[in-house]
Amino acid sequence: MTAFLRFADFSPGQTFRSGSLTVTAEQIKAFAGQFDPQPFHMEDAAAEAGPFRGLAASGWHTAGITMRLLVEGGLPIAGGLVGAGVDELRWHRPVRPGDTLTAESEVLEVIPSASRPGQGRLRVATRTMLPDGTVVQSMVSTLVVRG
Amino acid sequence: MTAFLRFADFSPGQTFRSGSLTVTAEQIKAFAGQFDPQPFHMEDAAAEAGPFRGLAASGWHTAGITMRLLVEGGLPIAGGLVGAGVDELRWHRPVRPGDTLTAESEVLEVIPSASRPGQGRLRVATRTMLPDGTVVQSMVSTLVVRG
Repeated sequence: MTAFLRFADFSPGQTFRSGSLTVTAEQIKAFAGQFDPQPFHMEDAAAEAGPFRGLAASGWHTAGITMRLLVEGGLPIAGGLVGAGVDELRWHRPVRPGDTLTAESEVLEVIPSASRPGQGRLRVATRTMLPDGTVVQSMVSTLVVRG
Repeated sequence: MTAFLRFADFSPGQTFRSGSLTVTAEQIKAFAGQFDPQPFHMEDAAAEAGPFRGLAASGWHTAGITMRLLVEGGLPIAGGLVGAGVDELRWHRPVRPGDTLTAESEVLEVIPSASRPGQGRLRVATRTMLPDGTVVQSMVSTLVVRG
């Protein structure tokens, strides 16, 4: 069972690893239909002729899957994951149907609140990876931790 | 009808405005169920007691809606919207059921490809706003434009 951590429990250099999720072609097309309705994310023929030379997930879909992996134990913050913002979000490689993704996170910085003792912000680097370690997405998030 | 632009048509300072979309409570809960399954994004009682003091969309949902607004004419790039990455993604205010969102984008930088004439990258600042101009999300995207 995952132990959920409070603000005082975090320190720079800590690492966390999520479970994994496998992406299907149907999920890629369904996400795109709602949030990134470009033919090369939705239709096989357009995908083959498109910029990714085959069906690939919207980068925002990969970001959503990463969030799910973090919420489901990949970044165990008591009180939940509340993001203030993200920097350096990069999509390094297309995510294909059948790809299995895992998220690894490292605490970069622990920033106590000036006004609220025991609370603050974390800066966390998260890499979303295939089983062989290939990084498909990376980002640095700022998370609000309430204590 | 939106005129779609090629790489050579872009210059710093150009601005674009999207259509609009209204977010429902059902959409907020459905997105959260798939990508951000925290009780305060999915259940009314937990939302009231949670960090946003009421139901609010996952920030990744707001990002997805913004992408849809950009794809549907908000950022008219011939060949489509292909993102290399995003910086300075910030969630300024919770997005609530019934909120209507519009995306305004400004071209910050036009970076020609060193190897491929007529192609390159754009750096674009996008603000997602309510009808009264309140900014709920902002980001700076790097987009690959094929010519």
